[in-house]
Amino acid sequence: MTEAFALGVDIGGTKVAAGLVDTRGKIVKRSRVPMAATGDAENGLAAVLSAIGELLPASAGSVRGIGICSPGPLDPRRGVIINPPNLPCWRNFPLAERVRAHYNVPVRVDNDANAAALAEVLWGAGRGYRNVFYATVGTGIGSGIILDGKILHGRTGAAGEAGHMGIDMHGPKCPCGKKGCVEVLASGPAIGRRARQKLGSHSNSVMHQLAGGDLHAVNGEIVSRAAQQGDALAREVIDETLDVLAYWLGNVIDFQEPEVIVMGGGVSTALAPYLEDIRRRWTGNVVNPWPEKVPLLLAHYGEEAGIAGAAALCE
Amino acid sequence: MTEAFALGVDIGGTKVAAGLVDTRGKIVKRSRVPMAATGDAENGLAAVLSAIGELLPASAGSVRGIGICSPGPLDPRRGVIINPPNLPCWRNFPLAERVRAHYNVPVRVDNDANAAALAEVLWGAGRGYRNVFYATVGTGIGSGIILDGKILHGRTGAAGEAGHMGIDMHGPKCPCGKKGCVEVLASGPAIGRRARQKLGSHSNSVMHQLAGGDLHAVNGEIVSRAAQQGDALAREVIDETLDVLAYWLGNVIDFQEPEVIVMGGGVSTALAPYLEDIRRRWTGNVVNPWPEKVPLLLAHYGEEAGIAGAAALCE
Repeated sequence: MTEAFALGVDIGGTKVAAGLVDTRGKIVKRSRVPMAATGDAENGLAAVLSAIGELLPASAGSVRGIGICSPGPLDPRRGVIINPPNLPCWRNFPLAERVRAHYNVPVRVDNDANAAALAEVLWGAGRGYRNVFYATVGTGIGSGIILDGKILHGRTGAAGEAGHMGIDMHGPKCPCGKKGCVEVLASGPAIGRRARQKLGSHSNSVMHQLAGGDLHAVNGEIVSRAAQQGDALAREVIDETLDVLAYWLGNVIDFQEPEVIVMGGGVSTALAPYLEDIRRRWTGNVVNPWPEKVPLLLAHYGEEAGIAGAAALCE
Repeated sequence: MTEAFALGVDIGGTKVAAGLVDTRGKIVKRSRVPMAATGDAENGLAAVLSAIGELLPASAGSVRGIGICSPGPLDPRRGVIINPPNLPCWRNFPLAERVRAHYNVPVRVDNDANAAALAEVLWGAGRGYRNVFYATVGTGIGSGIILDGKILHGRTGAAGEAGHMGIDMHGPKCPCGKKGCVEVLASGPAIGRRARQKLGSHSNSVMHQLAGGDLHAVNGEIVSRAAQQGDALAREVIDETLDVLAYWLGNVIDFQEPEVIVMGGGVSTALAPYLEDIRRRWTGNVVNPWPEKVPLLLAHYGEEAGIAGAAALCE
């Protein structure tokens, strides 16, 4: 272990995943422990320290720093976890300070989408760009905004929540409280829901077979595969989803005018065949004079975006 | 004339207005000439030089700089006017360079909403803040985004076009080509249109009297006054408009998380009685945990926001 590595920690509601990440963004060693999300604050901390300790025995010298990504709300400037709904163990918990006390290296904390955005800019699909919009499309939709090479944090660190941008003010309600935000219209579960609604009245869709007859198994990947096979219903679902994403990203272009948009998350691979289609659609949904100049790229990092992103916070 | 002043020039489709602006943002002397928007590029330039010349005779020493705001698209980094629809005289016209050749002081060019945003931050309602969203609500809806005290320009200078953020993807079409952007839903003309649609079937509204019986005279100011007098139809129009603005500004808070939002433009005074109402409504339309901490303030500059803004570009 040397300072050639940063240590990235990705905290979720059920697990803590960590990795040693080299200066080129490669994850060279990994650990994974269950997260103690619901009990005492110290037990939650112990889980994090355990994931770190597996990679960094006290005897083993140092790393450049420890980066941690966690569900928010959190304060990235002070490294304090405020009150995440799915980490009830922590309320105003000074995570960075507590971890620093054990390892005496710089400790940075941020949310997962911000961190993943930074990893893409440093080591991934956004490399070479300074002004980047990163979208993660999966169970939810998140985003990270990079300006002049740095995360846009805003007043308290809660900026960059573009996944809950409302684009259909009379649309369906999201659990977040807003109507018609992008997440409720185009996340993985939203794509599955659209498909199931259409499938109810049409039993000859390829989606039935791909899902083994189980409607609840229909997800973004199945819809995408069925559409690629020419299934008309699946193509309708894809069309609606692409319209939503293009309308949304058109708004992003008019607001931020990024040099590039990078898309990651569990649903992004299912959407990969349609990236150029999304770009064509956003051209009609912007006042920006040069929307065709903004590339839309698939993220480099997949499931380990959190670990890489957390490590990127140390750069 | 001394370097205690900057000179601000506001170019529109029909006139050029200019002013000498002191270091506190006070406009101390003004000029105004017709704009030659449709003919030869040199005639357009001559109008600008004439407005400047009235304030700055060649014999009179110097100013700190000359700032110019103009309709876009334009390139603020090079000071080039690209191809504004309402300034057909100029195509890729190097305005900054041409004006600099006459006065040998720094010349900056930007669009009017960006410039006005900067003036509010330097000298107006946004003073003391570094992270500001400025909205101008009038015939159109424009915006300027200030981050760390500077205008967010984006890839080419076309960032900050939040007035065309689409928030009703199945809504009415805007001349910009998008459906349901904020401008087509909440600008002055949009408010008038909403009112006229409702008035068609109700002749006992106060709005009829305030407009002297002329339906086409119904505008934001009349709707606001009628609503203040308890007119139910006018109140409905105001309600719909506040919903649109709150939904939009909620998106802005989730994206940028500004410290403050400043609202200017011709319709902003009509909306002044409802600013707190807008803030209450956006609280239900954000994932941001502290939306009540973001003030919504009326802009300091009114019709002269362009002149002040242009001068602010020199600071």
